[in-house]
Amino acid sequence: MAAEVGIINITGYAGMELARLLFRHPGVKVVSVTARSGAGQPLSQALPHLFPLALPVTTDPGEADLLFSALPHQSSAQALLPYIQKGVLVVDISADFRLKDPQEYERWYGTKHPAPDLLAQAVYGLPELHRAAIKEARVVANPGCYPTAAILALAPALKAGIIGPEIIVDAKSGVSGAGRTLSLDTHYSEANENLSAYALEGHRHLPEIAQELGPLCGEALKITFLPHLAPMTRGILATCYAPLVPGRVAPGEGGKKELLGLYADFYRGEPFVRVVGYSPQTKHTWGNNLCLLHPTLDPRTGRLIVLAALDNLVKGAAGQAIQNMNLMLGLPEAMGLEALAVFP
Amino acid sequence: MAAEVGIINITGYAGMELARLLFRHPGVKVVSVTARSGAGQPLSQALPHLFPLALPVTTDPGEADLLFSALPHQSSAQALLPYIQKGVLVVDISADFRLKDPQEYERWYGTKHPAPDLLAQAVYGLPELHRAAIKEARVVANPGCYPTAAILALAPALKAGIIGPEIIVDAKSGVSGAGRTLSLDTHYSEANENLSAYALEGHRHLPEIAQELGPLCGEALKITFLPHLAPMTRGILATCYAPLVPGRVAPGEGGKKELLGLYADFYRGEPFVRVVGYSPQTKHTWGNNLCLLHPTLDPRTGRLIVLAALDNLVKGAAGQAIQNMNLMLGLPEAMGLEALAVFP
Amino acid sequence: MAAEVGIINITGYAGMELARLLFRHPGVKVVSVTARSGAGQPLSQALPHLFPLALPVTTDPGEADLLFSALPHQSSAQALLPYIQKGVLVVDISADFRLKDPQEYERWYGTKHPAPDLLAQAVYGLPELHRAAIKEARVVANPGCYPTAAILALAPALKAGIIGPEIIVDAKSGVSGAGRTLSLDTHYSEANENLSAYALEGHRHLPEIAQELGPLCGEALKITFLPHLAPMTRGILATCYAPLVPGRVAPGEGGKKELLGLYADFYRGEPFVRVVGYSPQTKHTWGNNLCLLHPTLDPRTGRLIVLAALDNLVKGAAGQAIQNMNLMLGLPEAMGLEALAVFP
Amino acid sequence: MAAEVGIINITGYAGMELARLLFRHPGVKVVSVTARSGAGQPLSQALPHLFPLALPVTTDPGEADLLFSALPHQSSAQALLPYIQKGVLVVDISADFRLKDPQEYERWYGTKHPAPDLLAQAVYGLPELHRAAIKEARVVANPGCYPTAAILALAPALKAGIIGPEIIVDAKSGVSGAGRTLSLDTHYSEANENLSAYALEGHRHLPEIAQELGPLCGEALKITFLPHLAPMTRGILATCYAPLVPGRVAPGEGGKKELLGLYADFYRGEPFVRVVGYSPQTKHTWGNNLCLLHPTLDPRTGRLIVLAALDNLVKGAAGQAIQNMNLMLGLPEAMGLEALAVFP
Repeated sequence: MAAEVGIINITGYAGMELARLLFRHPGVKVVSVTARSGAGQPLSQALPHLFPLALPVTTDPGEADLLFSALPHQSSAQALLPYIQKGVLVVDISADFRLKDPQEYERWYGTKHPAPDLLAQAVYGLPELHRAAIKEARVVANPGCYPTAAILALAPALKAGIIGPEIIVDAKSGVSGAGRTLSLDTHYSEANENLSAYALEGHRHLPEIAQELGPLCGEALKITFLPHLAPMTRGILATCYAPLVPGRVAPGEGGKKELLGLYADFYRGEPFVRVVGYSPQTKHTWGNNLCLLHPTLDPRTGRLIVLAALDNLVKGAAGQAIQNMNLMLGLPEAMGLEALAVFP
Repeated sequence: MAAEVGIINITGYAGMELARLLFRHPGVKVVSVTARSGAGQPLSQALPHLFPLALPVTTDPGEADLLFSALPHQSSAQALLPYIQKGVLVVDISADFRLKDPQEYERWYGTKHPAPDLLAQAVYGLPELHRAAIKEARVVANPGCYPTAAILALAPALKAGIIGPEIIVDAKSGVSGAGRTLSLDTHYSEANENLSAYALEGHRHLPEIAQELGPLCGEALKITFLPHLAPMTRGILATCYAPLVPGRVAPGEGGKKELLGLYADFYRGEPFVRVVGYSPQTKHTWGNNLCLLHPTLDPRTGRLIVLAALDNLVKGAAGQAIQNMNLMLGLPEAMGLEALAVFP
Repeated sequence: MAAEVGIINITGYAGMELARLLFRHPGVKVVSVTARSGAGQPLSQALPHLFPLALPVTTDPGEADLLFSALPHQSSAQALLPYIQKGVLVVDISADFRLKDPQEYERWYGTKHPAPDLLAQAVYGLPELHRAAIKEARVVANPGCYPTAAILALAPALKAGIIGPEIIVDAKSGVSGAGRTLSLDTHYSEANENLSAYALEGHRHLPEIAQELGPLCGEALKITFLPHLAPMTRGILATCYAPLVPGRVAPGEGGKKELLGLYADFYRGEPFVRVVGYSPQTKHTWGNNLCLLHPTLDPRTGRLIVLAALDNLVKGAAGQAIQNMNLMLGLPEAMGLEALAVFP
Repeated sequence: MAAEVGIINITGYAGMELARLLFRHPGVKVVSVTARSGAGQPLSQALPHLFPLALPVTTDPGEADLLFSALPHQSSAQALLPYIQKGVLVVDISADFRLKDPQEYERWYGTKHPAPDLLAQAVYGLPELHRAAIKEARVVANPGCYPTAAILALAPALKAGIIGPEIIVDAKSGVSGAGRTLSLDTHYSEANENLSAYALEGHRHLPEIAQELGPLCGEALKITFLPHLAPMTRGILATCYAPLVPGRVAPGEGGKKELLGLYADFYRGEPFVRVVGYSPQTKHTWGNNLCLLHPTLDPRTGRLIVLAALDNLVKGAAGQAIQNMNLMLGLPEAMGLEALAVFP
């Protein structure tokens, strides 16, 4: 019998993307969807493109085997708390359970952590690094969109000890990453045909990246992470730079092959990471759960360059959440996530 | 009496942008426009948006005081050669006269330099660095779009000796930078809603950047320059990273102010460089000749970050060419280039 | 056992969309894909986003139960002819078998029909109008993207006799409708942020529309069909205008409800037509096989207005082709086409 | 001495476009700019792209020879009233003085007209139709963006009596036409790659169109006007359809030439209307004050088709306002508006 799942806050982009993807998932049944406003109306009224999912929008997720929360941070942990206590499995797409250190949370989110006791049992839901733990977890913190790209891009090189700690992640995201809340920055006429960096003071995804990559590095990481807003709806491209440790990778073409081999080995068998021999395009992941990785080197400077492309709403949010759900429920990891990218 | 100028190869984007900008220039008169095909037809037929510029398209620029060439490299030097020999002033938008070293040219462009004897007299047309020489020059090599952004972004810090030689320039360009030649990469359905890095083997603008920035640095530069194609028509954002030399700039807010001050001093009085206290948006330069610069630092890692935004077809090509022309003709430097950005 | 199908000319947008959609189709197996160039290479090299479809690109579709052709007109009929003669089922996405009258074909396509004898047995593959015939057909002519929208929009009103023959179809299409062949009109920098009408002399989809709608109208149709190119990758919106026959539909709100009822009745049970009570957005069909219809009236003038939105590559091409295939193979009509739209 | 002008509500798109265009106007000086919020800050802080315009943002336009108002309707008339009474010339970009009939205003805007006594003296500011009156006017009502396109497209044909009253205007607008107020419809991720019709119940620009075109038609007009939102920042394309009166225009190519001649005659000498022999593209007017018109006919149905393209923020708002100002101040009509379109 199919497991029953609920989606808390379906009206944001991650929430509606969960609904879209779960609609074709043969192993689970969406039994409830909630929203902070508009409760009572049929889902097809709130979100016409989801009309075949004949459910009312409620404020209470009710009984379910597993709950996804796509609420903003703080509200998310608060909403999930009673369900976690009842033993319901949860995948939290917000940032609430990502950082192990509640003080780090407070530093970046400007508020006390709403449930610090739960942090120890929460698992950072990046299956490529934490698959075993996710399978046993009751609370999974779904990674941020940028961290998914950056961590997948850099973990193999750090683990292999071929790069030093001086890392730069220059990331570009489509506008849906900024969510559905209205703002002048995401107003069509201002975001369109425009490109700029933001969060120059430090982006909340930085501590996640540092938390996950730090232990893989022999020294103290020195990461600069700078996100940019690009005029497209979906897609993240993270361009990562780090100095190669001298003598560990051959210079020139030989080194490029070594890198491809190293990355291919690291991700062998992974259903949603593809190491490619060309510069990946974000559009080749439009709507699906892939992360495309291309490691290469700049022979003039001895730097590693890794390009990571993914769809911020799928592998960067809802798709990865379902991947985590599959692991938690003992279902095949790729179930419901097999779609090819919509191209062009 | 207004000087007479000609535009060689008006049918590319730089050529037609020259025509657009010169149309309102009170100090010069466009007397000829050429194209590699379509000669004989009126300009308004080849390029309807230029219809008030009532000129026939020819293959021969004829008599003029100054010629702009917007031809591709190699053809450009070949076409300009006879005019240079006759003493006509030229501004070459192609790469042919940018690199001082003909071997470096051959390495990057795969062909012998068509006029190596002229390289010594050609001036690299970045007015902010070479104004005096441009005023005296007969051959000005108009800088590439990326180098304009990267050099303006990094020159002050290198000259002040506050950064080391380990530089990364992660640049993002709109699609018009790839020109008007048809290709699958610039086919609407494939470029739209897509973002990717290109020229991973090394981009031809790298040696220009190195040539101009190298002498400003005490040590041998180690620059990685990686361009990206962004789904917009115009605009370049160059995000530049370099390690701050310890002890030269205060950490934190104080250091940010120092950097703003240093850059403001460096560019004081410059009509087309604006040092700003916020993250610049490419769209704030749409259609005009500005380069917006924002220097800041990442206090967590002690890195300098400089953001440079400009319109690749204006300050990155045709506008800068006119700025150079103004200097060569003894006209006010900003003449004809006063327009504000078209926003939104 | 799953039926085996081949895709002729996978490298165009309709061809690759067939591959994308068939990848998740549980009832058929893609056994061959052809291209006019690039034969011999693996599909994942030609079209990286299709990499899980591990097939070589060939020039010969080989043995299959059913073939799709996504070739241009004329070549398509020529390529299909030997297979049709062998009894292979075919769905032709080109225009070759759409028009019943070979002279009409010659008038619009400027060439003699390559297989006029087959026209009698070919069925126009719009399931909502010709489902029974499609089930029995061996040759199905998949409708054009615009005709799919226009015919679905107008058939109910014409059949009910509530509108006169003076019809205007003002249609707007995304750029992928112009295919993958390079042209200045579809060059990113020129198509982006631009909108224009085209085919003012008459578009080849007009005779299809007339052929299908003509018999539903009591009088001689007088249709103007004017297509426009809109700066987006996918999507068609057809805005259809026709005078209401006086006295047949109540004026005002009552009439609007009657129209919604009439259309809902006409399309009752249709899996891929949805009659909606609001102005449909093309983006609500992004990547799926839906046609959204909204009939309403302009009470000031007594005109019917019908808005039809669909994805030109799915319901307007590959999705409808699969719908036809399902009918021809006796599979459930919606099999493989259940996906919700990718939004946003 | 240059006339002094003020801009009321500079922070909307029409207001900032006024500032952009007036910056290069040699005949007037902007002496004040107001905003509903943010008063006291320098303009360069509120709108960085206008930084060379060194003015503080105020709430009071102060002394000026002429005031532009870019406020929303109702507030606009209220704000202008005292200045009109003092004899200051005004160009109102809002709808407040466009409709001659205060009851029609109340019907469409849902509020009593704030200054019905002034309607008699206000002139509808479409110079191509009302030039003489504008020159004498003290209050000019700047036309809406859609009406500018629709009226210019249809006036010649109606005046010549070659079309009947059954008119359809299918108009497509870029998103800036919806203004700077935030909404889900203009949120980047929802407006991008999307196209839909809106205002199906009737758009407020309809009565303007009817008021201006009605008197040119011998019979009672029956106009349907349907606007669409297209995924681009600027640009309007109005596609207009009307039945040709039998016998007045030759069928086929001859008739097309007659139409071009008729339109060329009607607009002879007009600085900002260009009658063209091809399908006009909105992008050919990007940032400038042109309206491109292409009249043609559909020989199959005997319908007139007229395409009108313009930039909704220039000829559709701020540019036309300056054209009106020039007329009111006795300046050359095209002063400050000579710029070519920014293309691509």
